[in-house]
Amino acid sequence: MTDTTLTPNREESGELTPRSIPTFQECWPGSTKESLELEHNGHKMSVPFRRVHLSTEGHFDLYDTTGPQGFDPRDGIPKVRESWVANRSDQSRGWTQMRWARAGVITEEMAFVAAREGVEAEFVRLEIAEGRAVIPANRCHTELEPVIIGRKFRTKINSNIGNSATHSSIAEEVEKLQWSTMWGADTVMDLSTGENIHATREWIMRNSSVPIGTVPIYQALEKVNGDPEKLTLDLFIETLVEQAEQGVDYFTIHAGVLLRFVPLTADRVTGLVSRGGSIMAKWCLAYHEENFLYTGFEKICEVMKEYDVTFSLGDGLRPGSLADANDAAQMGELRTLGELTQIAWKHDVQVMIEGPGHVPIHLIQENMDEQLKHCFEAPFYTLGPLVTDVAPGYDHITSAIGAANIGSMGCAMLCYVTPKEHLGLPDRDDVKTGVVTYRIAAHAADVAKGLTGARDWDDALSLARFEFRWHDQFRLSMDPVTAYDFHDQTLPSENAKVAHFCSMCGPKFCAMKITGEVREAMADKSSEFAQLGREVYVPEGATEV
Amino acid sequence: MTDTTLTPNREESGELTPRSIPTFQECWPGSTKESLELEHNGHKMSVPFRRVHLSTEGHFDLYDTTGPQGFDPRDGIPKVRESWVANRSDQSRGWTQMRWARAGVITEEMAFVAAREGVEAEFVRLEIAEGRAVIPANRCHTELEPVIIGRKFRTKINSNIGNSATHSSIAEEVEKLQWSTMWGADTVMDLSTGENIHATREWIMRNSSVPIGTVPIYQALEKVNGDPEKLTLDLFIETLVEQAEQGVDYFTIHAGVLLRFVPLTADRVTGLVSRGGSIMAKWCLAYHEENFLYTGFEKICEVMKEYDVTFSLGDGLRPGSLADANDAAQMGELRTLGELTQIAWKHDVQVMIEGPGHVPIHLIQENMDEQLKHCFEAPFYTLGPLVTDVAPGYDHITSAIGAANIGSMGCAMLCYVTPKEHLGLPDRDDVKTGVVTYRIAAHAADVAKGLTGARDWDDALSLARFEFRWHDQFRLSMDPVTAYDFHDQTLPSENAKVAHFCSMCGPKFCAMKITGEVREAMADKSSEFAQLGREVYVPEGATEV
Repeated sequence: MTDTTLTPNREESGELTPRSIPTFQECWPGSTKESLELEHNGHKMSVPFRRVHLSTEGHFDLYDTTGPQGFDPRDGIPKVRESWVANRSDQSRGWTQMRWARAGVITEEMAFVAAREGVEAEFVRLEIAEGRAVIPANRCHTELEPVIIGRKFRTKINSNIGNSATHSSIAEEVEKLQWSTMWGADTVMDLSTGENIHATREWIMRNSSVPIGTVPIYQALEKVNGDPEKLTLDLFIETLVEQAEQGVDYFTIHAGVLLRFVPLTADRVTGLVSRGGSIMAKWCLAYHEENFLYTGFEKICEVMKEYDVTFSLGDGLRPGSLADANDAAQMGELRTLGELTQIAWKHDVQVMIEGPGHVPIHLIQENMDEQLKHCFEAPFYTLGPLVTDVAPGYDHITSAIGAANIGSMGCAMLCYVTPKEHLGLPDRDDVKTGVVTYRIAAHAADVAKGLTGARDWDDALSLARFEFRWHDQFRLSMDPVTAYDFHDQTLPSENAKVAHFCSMCGPKFCAMKITGEVREAMADKSSEFAQLGREVYVPEGATEV
Repeated sequence: MTDTTLTPNREESGELTPRSIPTFQECWPGSTKESLELEHNGHKMSVPFRRVHLSTEGHFDLYDTTGPQGFDPRDGIPKVRESWVANRSDQSRGWTQMRWARAGVITEEMAFVAAREGVEAEFVRLEIAEGRAVIPANRCHTELEPVIIGRKFRTKINSNIGNSATHSSIAEEVEKLQWSTMWGADTVMDLSTGENIHATREWIMRNSSVPIGTVPIYQALEKVNGDPEKLTLDLFIETLVEQAEQGVDYFTIHAGVLLRFVPLTADRVTGLVSRGGSIMAKWCLAYHEENFLYTGFEKICEVMKEYDVTFSLGDGLRPGSLADANDAAQMGELRTLGELTQIAWKHDVQVMIEGPGHVPIHLIQENMDEQLKHCFEAPFYTLGPLVTDVAPGYDHITSAIGAANIGSMGCAMLCYVTPKEHLGLPDRDDVKTGVVTYRIAAHAADVAKGLTGARDWDDALSLARFEFRWHDQFRLSMDPVTAYDFHDQTLPSENAKVAHFCSMCGPKFCAMKITGEVREAMADKSSEFAQLGREVYVPEGATEV
């Protein structure tokens, strides 16, 4: 690692003409970006949060992923983690968050995520040590604001960006990164397969405050001109090092696609739908040899450990249709991923497990159960799953249904799906739709799994709604811009923002307005109601409010 | 009932300047509208379905709600049910589908829905007789193509339309009706509360091939200038008769909002959010008397029976926020609805039960369990539920998550929510988004509950996807127009519709293309794989494909 890889070179930026996206203030009216100032081992750190200012003079604080604002992407964002890493650089090679945690040390990253999640740092350390959570934080990614991924924490979401051979622009990908984190992406994967893979990734890294994941086999394949049969372990490891030097925080590696599993996909409706999985299957068949990512796994662990890159063990045999869900190929690979998890942990390398894909509602629980069991509670990271195959153009929705469900069961990170899934490369608007939809799924999961404080947000917004504090309702929402816009479409005047009704029902039929009158009537008759209250029939099993 | 109420009068149409919506052919490229010709008791009937023509020379048939096409709304659509009803008119007053079913008679409506669902007519009769399913079919709604609602049948969805005091146009509401059924609404509720309630409903009825529901208390309230305290049972019944004469197929009636439940809402975050519920609560408190819809329920049953209008027993105390979900008020009302169900059934009146609202994922199952238990398996009909309160502008999604879940548990009909929920009156685009989103939820539920044939649709589309039959994939989708549009945005040429890749991955990285090559390789090595297959490790519990 040299400084030149960390400092963007304007001359190399070429295509990177900054694109203009709306500002934080435009996206989050009524919110300010704040930070909690911490000191840990002599290091000052600013833990970001977003403060929503309410008309009641109060405020509501929310987790914030938006990162530093207002920097020219050709300069990159500040390297907030540089001093933390520098301080331990002499001894830190080969030390990972897991190794520190097992040694009983609370790192700056652990202290940071503990403050961010509102939990004890010791609890974070324990979860990392046991492998139930990960902090993907390559020591070369010094722009990072650390994030913890594990089922006892806030459910995280990932946004996929990256070019393809038919579409390519570095500026557009950096814009998608910024747009993703503006709306709530906790991590971003750069899945570029087109031109300028290295340069695109460099500009993404230098502008990313969130962990960046990649699928290194894509670049390895580019290096052999797209011929899977020319892939080798050495070439793959060379690619890992190249990407690790740039600061990539987690690698998807399809080491569970074993030769003996490939024939199990022969009768599937949709065969292999993982790009990495199909590449490795082709290699295995060409040589009739075991997957070199599997046989070379310990060598790969050495690189991961050197930079503290986290494994995201890829599900190369994931189902691409309901018909193929939970089949022998998928479940066989899952067990292999569990076996590899144990090897990675032996090297103190952090591990996440990737999951499907396309799964009908009634088969989702089995995925979560089997993953926890066979992968020893390593964090699960699923794509959706989509609960039906028949709605291309709406797969952010078909998959959010599955994502909210598996999240509520304990899936730690949900990889978003955009409306363009199965149809084309997402543009900026699709990225926003995907991110907001997945924040909905993740938050619904957090409420369902009883995460401390999660429902407070719902209660704050609902109270604002009930009290006709329209501005507060909009400011507290997942996407204030859209909420304002939709309200303005029928009642554009500022007066409507203080009215005790909306255009859905009009003034006479507003249930919430009438409830106010009902409550006044109840207050007037409080003595009568004291009597009535004693007569009220409370059904057994009903939740008391 | 006179002929004049059934025959639209062009002079009265005033505002009804037909609006132009895309045609069936434009919405469903590659599909044709077909029908199965049946004869029952000497009556010919055409049971509609949609045939999707595939490039393989095959076809795939789907349930069709689009209704007769190409009629001027000022003339209304054909009265396909007129002869069925006329034939039994002498004896049919006071006879309902439930009464016929209990008498062992299979009506034309039962034969129609049996063919439409692909089940035995005797099975339909039994489900109706037992109250587990309903066929909302007012004898005055002769334009109806009957629909069955029950958990052993295809999950249905409802679209809400209707004007409000701030927005009103008959033509716009008729357009929303047509647009709703074009995309898959099984029933439509006219929730108008603004001007021209009677005329708006008339034009909706005369153009609707799907069952129409209303909330009669809205019109009753209009008749007393918006003052709930002036409402009386007589006025309400007069309104029921007026609407029943027009042909309304089901009425939402908030007869379970009992005086003693109202104080239970005092400490709620969002009080009462049902318009009908809040109106009745206000009436109860004003007089400190029991809800007249409850005390007068048997009189109401007489009207329902006379026209065979189905009850949709309203959940006036449904929660309007996660905080209020499953509380004592809601559960108390649910038990009262069960009590009323028994009374309605005594009169042979069909019943559905309405449900919430806002419910976090982990509390949804309790709603379904309690409803089945306390309402004796009468069909459940829920609004969503929304699984989080924090995403105004995206409540079609927050609620589709809840809807798919409760549908998979046995909820018979899902009332859609549009993106404008909580913000304003939906326009035509919102209606389409709501309907398609809810068709996704309903179909996902059908797959999960194992409805015969449901997954065949997913398999047909997935196979088309895998075989790069792009046109077939789009034609088989929930919304071909959007699928084509999204694909065209990145690869607009006709060549791309036969290409073995898309813009997501480009040609080199297409997993499905590589799978084709993998399969060829497997075929070449079939003898080796026969051997390998014997060595394949099949994990216990894995589903064999």
